[in-house]
Amino acid sequence: MRDAKPAQASFTTMTEMVFPNDINGLNGLMGGRLLYWMDIVAAIAAQKHANSYVVTASVDNVSFSQPIKIGNVVTLKAKVTRAFNTSMEVHIEVQAEDVPQQRIVESHRAFFTMVAIDMEGNKIEVPEVIPEAHEEITLFESALRRRQLRLVLAGRMKPEEAHELKSIFDIKN
Amino acid sequence: MRDAKPAQASFTTMTEMVFPNDINGLNGLMGGRLLYWMDIVAAIAAQKHANSYVVTASVDNVSFSQPIKIGNVVTLKAKVTRAFNTSMEVHIEVQAEDVPQQRIVESHRAFFTMVAIDMEGNKIEVPEVIPEAHEEITLFESALRRRQLRLVLAGRMKPEEAHELKSIFDIKN
Amino acid sequence: MRDAKPAQASFTTMTEMVFPNDINGLNGLMGGRLLYWMDIVAAIAAQKHANSYVVTASVDNVSFSQPIKIGNVVTLKAKVTRAFNTSMEVHIEVQAEDVPQQRIVESHRAFFTMVAIDMEGNKIEVPEVIPEAHEEITLFESALRRRQLRLVLAGRMKPEEAHELKSIFDIKN
Amino acid sequence: MRDAKPAQASFTTMTEMVFPNDINGLNGLMGGRLLYWMDIVAAIAAQKHANSYVVTASVDNVSFSQPIKIGNVVTLKAKVTRAFNTSMEVHIEVQAEDVPQQRIVESHRAFFTMVAIDMEGNKIEVPEVIPEAHEEITLFESALRRRQLRLVLAGRMKPEEAHELKSIFDIKN
Amino acid sequence: MRDAKPAQASFTTMTEMVFPNDINGLNGLMGGRLLYWMDIVAAIAAQKHANSYVVTASVDNVSFSQPIKIGNVVTLKAKVTRAFNTSMEVHIEVQAEDVPQQRIVESHRAFFTMVAIDMEGNKIEVPEVIPEAHEEITLFESALRRRQLRLVLAGRMKPEEAHELKSIFDIKN
Amino acid sequence: MRDAKPAQASFTTMTEMVFPNDINGLNGLMGGRLLYWMDIVAAIAAQKHANSYVVTASVDNVSFSQPIKIGNVVTLKAKVTRAFNTSMEVHIEVQAEDVPQQRIVESHRAFFTMVAIDMEGNKIEVPEVIPEAHEEITLFESALRRRQLRLVLAGRMKPEEAHELKSIFDIKN
Repeated sequence: MRDAKPAQASFTTMTEMVFPNDINGLNGLMGGRLLYWMDIVAAIAAQKHANSYVVTASVDNVSFSQPIKIGNVVTLKAKVTRAFNTSMEVHIEVQAEDVPQQRIVESHRAFFTMVAIDMEGNKIEVPEVIPEAHEEITLFESALRRRQLRLVLAGRMKPEEAHELKSIFDIKN
Repeated sequence: MRDAKPAQASFTTMTEMVFPNDINGLNGLMGGRLLYWMDIVAAIAAQKHANSYVVTASVDNVSFSQPIKIGNVVTLKAKVTRAFNTSMEVHIEVQAEDVPQQRIVESHRAFFTMVAIDMEGNKIEVPEVIPEAHEEITLFESALRRRQLRLVLAGRMKPEEAHELKSIFDIKN
Repeated sequence: MRDAKPAQASFTTMTEMVFPNDINGLNGLMGGRLLYWMDIVAAIAAQKHANSYVVTASVDNVSFSQPIKIGNVVTLKAKVTRAFNTSMEVHIEVQAEDVPQQRIVESHRAFFTMVAIDMEGNKIEVPEVIPEAHEEITLFESALRRRQLRLVLAGRMKPEEAHELKSIFDIKN
Repeated sequence: MRDAKPAQASFTTMTEMVFPNDINGLNGLMGGRLLYWMDIVAAIAAQKHANSYVVTASVDNVSFSQPIKIGNVVTLKAKVTRAFNTSMEVHIEVQAEDVPQQRIVESHRAFFTMVAIDMEGNKIEVPEVIPEAHEEITLFESALRRRQLRLVLAGRMKPEEAHELKSIFDIKN
Repeated sequence: MRDAKPAQASFTTMTEMVFPNDINGLNGLMGGRLLYWMDIVAAIAAQKHANSYVVTASVDNVSFSQPIKIGNVVTLKAKVTRAFNTSMEVHIEVQAEDVPQQRIVESHRAFFTMVAIDMEGNKIEVPEVIPEAHEEITLFESALRRRQLRLVLAGRMKPEEAHELKSIFDIKN
Repeated sequence: MRDAKPAQASFTTMTEMVFPNDINGLNGLMGGRLLYWMDIVAAIAAQKHANSYVVTASVDNVSFSQPIKIGNVVTLKAKVTRAFNTSMEVHIEVQAEDVPQQRIVESHRAFFTMVAIDMEGNKIEVPEVIPEAHEEITLFESALRRRQLRLVLAGRMKPEEAHELKSIFDIKN
């Protein structure tokens, strides 16, 4: 295992302006364009943590609320929350702003899981994450539960073994 | 509530070829490009079911396995599994093929939730889905569980009320 | 000559949504964007028939009628009609639909000729096509006439030798 | 009918460099990209002749020969050959050059038919073309034959009425 | 004149990954792509300062040194240095990094001048800039000299009136 | 030093149509898109002069005036003005036209400096430029002054040594 690194070391900010081709028929940013940007910012954050190439392993529970309009400035902030051997969970916060109107339009969250690979495409181990700020600690702790949920849903973990996940449902074992 | 429609009525096939700009540094299709295509095919399938404009509401549990290579032909098949008032869950199957080598490279699944809206952007009701084929029935039934999971994770449903979801964990109440 | 294959084996469906950057100044899909999509779907169909790389050899008699609008869903269906040693004629049908309005907007046809090549770019032989459905047989038979027309127009066949082509003009020889 | 204009008045030159995303799997410029550029240069030439908006009506007998490589400079030259009421035939010459190697790689020709429209999308009359240079006169004269071919193939002219076209086959009626 | 704002209030970070289509024939990021990104980040910084729409007025003395490679992460940082009635000078710093190799590849600087406009496209006044950090003060002071240079080169100021500019040449008047 | 070549030998014309994605929020061509096109046309002109690969070294004093609108035809004309060992200054003229309205909308000028490189990326010498037309001679002569300005601003030449440049300010030494 390589030396642990602080969560902050992977922090990445990306800014995009919404162009006409990014919108759907009703003048809002299409979800697919936002997912495309999220994937790039997640990859950069994970590269910073692992200092290696990375590929996307999974995408979870992205939700979209109010529409983001043409001309809005979209800011994406990504940080690695926790590492699991060769994979890293990346937390992404998205904010859209109508700058001339000084109005924050939108605020999203998403979790992407990225895997570190070497030049031949083999998975490689990544450093552990040291959470420092309050929010980093909260995200670090809840990461285990989200990971169990992904494994259960993918059929790679038995539900009864997902101890952390069960705690959501206040279930005693 | 508008008349129910068979799941098959929303079936949509989309085919894309992987171009150089779609790949990441290690020659595999970037996750963000695949998410972008998934969003378009999900939107078309949902439009066919609702006969209205639609916007993306959430994306769940997309997982990526083996790399898809440049020149591969990617086929995305989408179908609405179930409707919940104004929203529809869309199931997407992705297959990548190296046609000259006659080799199926990859097979993914994902669920997108789309919401039907009118010209002013207000949510509108959609027809119910009539599942007919065996797989359609299975997806229809499990859609309720996935919806509860989304609501619990988004903090919009109390875990103890998510009866269908609990069944994953074989828990009696 | 490799084993003959049914026309149906090359059948390919591609679906695209019309985005703002695909339209010309008057809000209709630009011809060049549709030709670009036609070329991709023709290449995939020809790849499926030949199981090799292919390049475009010629494009014939594409005609455009009513305008296709932004937000329309464009469906392209391609199938190899007939093979001539190393080349294949591909028939493409294009349909545009305003899904929310449930209106089919447009219907085109085009013929692309694709050539099979190996990794070094040398032309290679392709399987013959076995037409089965009624429309496949009609297209298979008329393919010879269209091929003679291409060769005459390219100055590679003497008009008096284009026996099939002359039949268009009801001329006895 | 508006005043006639010399063919030269519509002459348009367009230069493009071939980027990675323009090529197919075997490193040659994809046919669809070249068709896309041809459509734009044809539209500009037709706009110059008609001084109106234009849309693409048909594409004929484009043939592709040797591959155009990445980094090549592609020059497209377009000129209106003849007008027919509301439509114009545009002749396009394409040349590809490997500038560092001082080698002309490729030479194509194509004919696009464009229709002049007003702001409401209605067809409008265009000026006649005055051919001056030797090549302009040749193209002007053969344009009638190509037009009859298009009309016969589209089922909008009876073959026996296509007098100019028949002359290709040296047939007396 | 609207209230003055600190330089820091316009600070904008933009992160881009270099994709295959962004490179020229020799595998380095093309200058034109970097200029395109610079223009977007300059526009966002100027929008934040002026809280209005902005357009690009001029670009000065951008220089490119070592090549930026495919897969590199490019970070652009922009800040308004000084305002002149309706225009703002924006300073842009560019850094490229090969993250897996932990190597900073490149460091550029550029100055863009942006003009604030209202919805009808008329120029509007912008707040003055309050420089605080040491580098902000240095850039604020030298901005006048750069502005005189732009005006002289554009023929809109007589060289003998460009007092600040002359100081570069250590000339007494 | 390779044989000198006439300025005219590098002359390059590029034509682009303004598409929706090229415009900013207020319907004018974004500066960054024009800079991107300028870079390509400058690179082609420099390649023609040097018959080698080239990279962008610097961009100077590009100014933008009236807005260029969607649907406008933008014509860029580039020519090498003078060579300095391994670098070439390229002069670019930009004109925008609303063809249906027969109105020339805009006229810009810019200077790009390009460097000739071999396949390994090493700088290589380029032929001298022979200016012939009146404008070519004027641009050839003033190129030295612009070069000194670039060097002084980049801190690579002492202002007191920039004899040509000083002449702008009518200063005797």
